[in-house]
Amino acid sequence: MKTFRSLSVILFATACAATAAIKTEVVEYREGDTVLQGFVAYDDAKAGKVPGVLVVHQWMGLTDYEKKRCEMLAELGYVAFAVDIYGKGVRPANTGEAGGLAGKYKGDRALLRRRVNAGFETLKGLPKCDTAKTAAIGYCFGGTTALELGRSGAPLSGIVSFHGGLSTPTPADAANIKGKVLALHGADDPFVPPAEVAAFEQEMRTAKCDWQFVAYGGAVHSFTQAAAGNDNSKGAAYNEKADKRSWAAMKEFFAEIFR
Amino acid sequence: MKTFRSLSVILFATACAATAAIKTEVVEYREGDTVLQGFVAYDDAKAGKVPGVLVVHQWMGLTDYEKKRCEMLAELGYVAFAVDIYGKGVRPANTGEAGGLAGKYKGDRALLRRRVNAGFETLKGLPKCDTAKTAAIGYCFGGTTALELGRSGAPLSGIVSFHGGLSTPTPADAANIKGKVLALHGADDPFVPPAEVAAFEQEMRTAKCDWQFVAYGGAVHSFTQAAAGNDNSKGAAYNEKADKRSWAAMKEFFAEIFR
Repeated sequence: MKTFRSLSVILFATACAATAAIKTEVVEYREGDTVLQGFVAYDDAKAGKVPGVLVVHQWMGLTDYEKKRCEMLAELGYVAFAVDIYGKGVRPANTGEAGGLAGKYKGDRALLRRRVNAGFETLKGLPKCDTAKTAAIGYCFGGTTALELGRSGAPLSGIVSFHGGLSTPTPADAANIKGKVLALHGADDPFVPPAEVAAFEQEMRTAKCDWQFVAYGGAVHSFTQAAAGNDNSKGAAYNEKADKRSWAAMKEFFAEIFR
Repeated sequence: MKTFRSLSVILFATACAATAAIKTEVVEYREGDTVLQGFVAYDDAKAGKVPGVLVVHQWMGLTDYEKKRCEMLAELGYVAFAVDIYGKGVRPANTGEAGGLAGKYKGDRALLRRRVNAGFETLKGLPKCDTAKTAAIGYCFGGTTALELGRSGAPLSGIVSFHGGLSTPTPADAANIKGKVLALHGADDPFVPPAEVAAFEQEMRTAKCDWQFVAYGGAVHSFTQAAAGNDNSKGAAYNEKADKRSWAAMKEFFAEIFR
């Protein structure tokens, strides 16, 4: 994996108003010749290295949503890096474009793995990051991608998928997964149907992964995203209880894997 | 529900060696004409009323295992009461007898509900119990029974099933469930197969319950019970990771429902 290791911080660090110690930076990095633009958040008041969490975006690309999650992770004491799978400036304007872009990368898993691994290398290159303690989390398309990072053999301590697609063209690659896996799923998610869940469980079982699967009753796709509204009949909607419970489950999971 | 409310404490309170403030008592109570013998544990050093947790035993009846769980719950600050479904002195000598007894009560849900409700009333009658904050947990047969208590309409804040059977002859009764439901399941449990899980999820969905389901990879039946050994091929075995994770999930759930 060739990665442009020298980070080029293109915006100076800015203190977060609500939590003065949280620093955030936009980070430019590369995968091959492609320039990518990620985002890092960490607690500047915390001494020494801390576990690193990669955050993989939804189909709309890296947005304020993922940045907010990075800040929340920084408040928990981690250094969080939101990757950019699509490339600098490549941000879908609507769901049609988002579907096209997400589809492109889901259809080319080799490219997807290179892109997410470039982000992972960037995370590990951050001065704050304890490279022996890393995890990847992702939302929707990002959940799929975080799992694919694991299947590529990345030395992660853990992977958390939030309402992610669970299918892969190469389930045998689950044998490469180094860390523990936690899949957090809306029980009524029409985009990740029971057959896909069952195939994922079988994949984890066959590979003898350390895995857990949580289904949240009454939750559909995008249950962590307030902007998704509250109409379950659309198949994607916010669910405050599932949002809070899944975040708590992730925290508990991190407490275990980063112990 | 007729219950013998005046508790007859037949053994004086004994302080637990490891945690001096934990008091335990054997409690005799009745369901109709049947004498039952339960067990209570609470932290005597904790002032005032505290949430009450009903603990329902496995098919072997009320054993030291459930008593230990009561003590662990007392250490968390709850008053825990282990019910006796089978009756005073009725303790199966082997798994054959256990299967017969568990089968009798699973086959007569009206009787099972009376028995577990008698225990619930006893819990609520304990001076230490905050009757507005109660939950039922259960292991294997006890998980089935805790859910059945919910289906009977008992005003619980929550129900937790640990590797419990999830089927019921009257799924429509889930509409009576007042509290939140957390089902903790071994993903490879041959005694609670995928079809039973799917039917349970559909039951919860139809009744619009507040429910969560967790599957622990690599875990079979009895995953919380050290005495079950470590041979998954038997279909029931201890799994330390799943034991610890499920206990942590229960704690998080209690933090939410007893807030």
